Amino acid sequence: MTTLKEFMTQEMPKIEAVMLRLVEDIQAPAMLKEAMSYSLKAGGKRVRPLFVLAVMDHFGKNHDNGYVVGAAVEMIHTYSLIHDDLPSMDNDDYRRGKLTNHKVYGEAYATLAGDALNTLPFGIIARMNELSATQKVTLIELLSVAAGAEGMVGGQVLDIDGETRHLTLDELVQVHVNKTGAILRFSIESGAVLAGASDEERAILRDYAYHIGLAFQIKDDILDIEGTTEELGKTAGKDVASDKSTYPALLTLDGAKEKLDTHYKEALAALGKLPSDSTLLEELATYIVKRNK
Amino acid sequence: MTTLKEFMTQEMPKIEAVMLRLVEDIQAPAMLKEAMSYSLKAGGKRVRPLFVLAVMDHFGKNHDNGYVVGAAVEMIHTYSLIHDDLPSMDNDDYRRGKLTNHKVYGEAYATLAGDALNTLPFGIIARMNELSATQKVTLIELLSVAAGAEGMVGGQVLDIDGETRHLTLDELVQVHVNKTGAILRFSIESGAVLAGASDEERAILRDYAYHIGLAFQIKDDILDIEGTTEELGKTAGKDVASDKSTYPALLTLDGAKEKLDTHYKEALAALGKLPSDSTLLEELATYIVKRNK
Repeated sequence: MTTLKEFMTQEMPKIEAVMLRLVEDIQAPAMLKEAMSYSLKAGGKRVRPLFVLAVMDHFGKNHDNGYVVGAAVEMIHTYSLIHDDLPSMDNDDYRRGKLTNHKVYGEAYATLAGDALNTLPFGIIARMNELSATQKVTLIELLSVAAGAEGMVGGQVLDIDGETRHLTLDELVQVHVNKTGAILRFSIESGAVLAGASDEERAILRDYAYHIGLAFQIKDDILDIEGTTEELGKTAGKDVASDKSTYPALLTLDGAKEKLDTHYKEALAALGKLPSDSTLLEELATYIVKRNK
Repeated sequence: MTTLKEFMTQEMPKIEAVMLRLVEDIQAPAMLKEAMSYSLKAGGKRVRPLFVLAVMDHFGKNHDNGYVVGAAVEMIHTYSLIHDDLPSMDNDDYRRGKLTNHKVYGEAYATLAGDALNTLPFGIIARMNELSATQKVTLIELLSVAAGAEGMVGGQVLDIDGETRHLTLDELVQVHVNKTGAILRFSIESGAVLAGASDEERAILRDYAYHIGLAFQIKDDILDIEGTTEELGKTAGKDVASDKSTYPALLTLDGAKEKLDTHYKEALAALGKLPSDSTLLEELATYIVKRNK
């Protein structure tokens, strides 16, 4: 059986190669493609594509279509980081230890490179010859909802509102279900769509994804307190310094850790309802809650 | 026979109503929906949706699907204006005589409202129950190419490069074929896809669209010189003041007018190849080249 570490070592270079090739292949100004690729190459954990692939793996499917959908979802994630880092948003100079897009290419290019990475994934999915038209439409609809006002962008708006006032725990959950959770849910559900999973299996995986999404965000909040700037590749302690509404701020650090553990166990419980072995998806859940960056 | 004026009077309120309902219907933070709707309501000529409908009309088709695809394309156009007006891009305080999005909602919201209007159209098309999955995939692929790095966004990048050096006429054509032309071509071709036009008819309409796109931009350049700030709803004379590469700058004002006339005649010549009456599409071409705003 493939362990998570082997899986990641095998798959991450393939994900990155497909992603960069999909940008290289388009007919567009060279400098724009460079700005798009710069942020795609900037590393990161590639958690979203790994979830697409791990779900396909669970159903014993060939991964080829997963690399393409995984690349599409990583592009959406990357565009959101480029725009999030802009001076008018979080105003970050560094991301994953590298200069942010606008520090290298300027704000106008960074805005446009982000825009292009928002649009391209829909065309990429539409061009996947191995899928039926119905599968493509399903994936595109899920991705549009997950990425847009009803998902990630809506979550970012709630998050900005949370910078000017203290959120309740319910509101904080809403921020994260949308801001981080929606795209993680898409990653997991798209793997199920590609694998031809049943409606029941998709519902179980959505439940798993819900808890993974919240666990992911709570862990991020905890790392902001316990991690170092060096480990994280971004400034640690930013949330506390800005008095931001986070899980530790609302529940204490111990309370946040307890909540993290609850969502972790719920995620594993969901997997227990799947008929076949789900070791890889369990290990991914463990990786999310135990990581130190 | 419907004249263009009757057609616009009938259709423009319907286009706007469908567009605003499509935003109203999504589950998203109220303030985000307000920022999205603000710019959608800000008026404009609605040229792109009108082209979708005029092409469907040409083929004698019911317009219902055209309102939805027209709304989708107007959202893409509107997102590009919101981002274009940002301080890091053109830094405009007014658009169509109203305050620009970021002047009302702030830069962070304007960035996110633009992002949401870039993503939503793909979901809207994916949810059009009256279309076959194959039609949806065709439209989504065309829209992604037209809107993204290979089309509009690519054109904007070339346009920014043109602000720091003088472009050749060939380069200027490339800017406009992409920046303005790509979305106009999508509008016209999507009408043909919705109407079930033949490949030959689609090719004729793409030719028409190519010339309409360039005519539209040349007319814009001429209006920047001959129009008034009051008529245009934006600052006149900006291109000359910034020494921007435009058709009049490269060809003289008379030369630009000659070029405009050439593309106008080529657009009409393309329509002449269509088997049935194309009065409405001819009148739209005339409207594009004779308008004073």
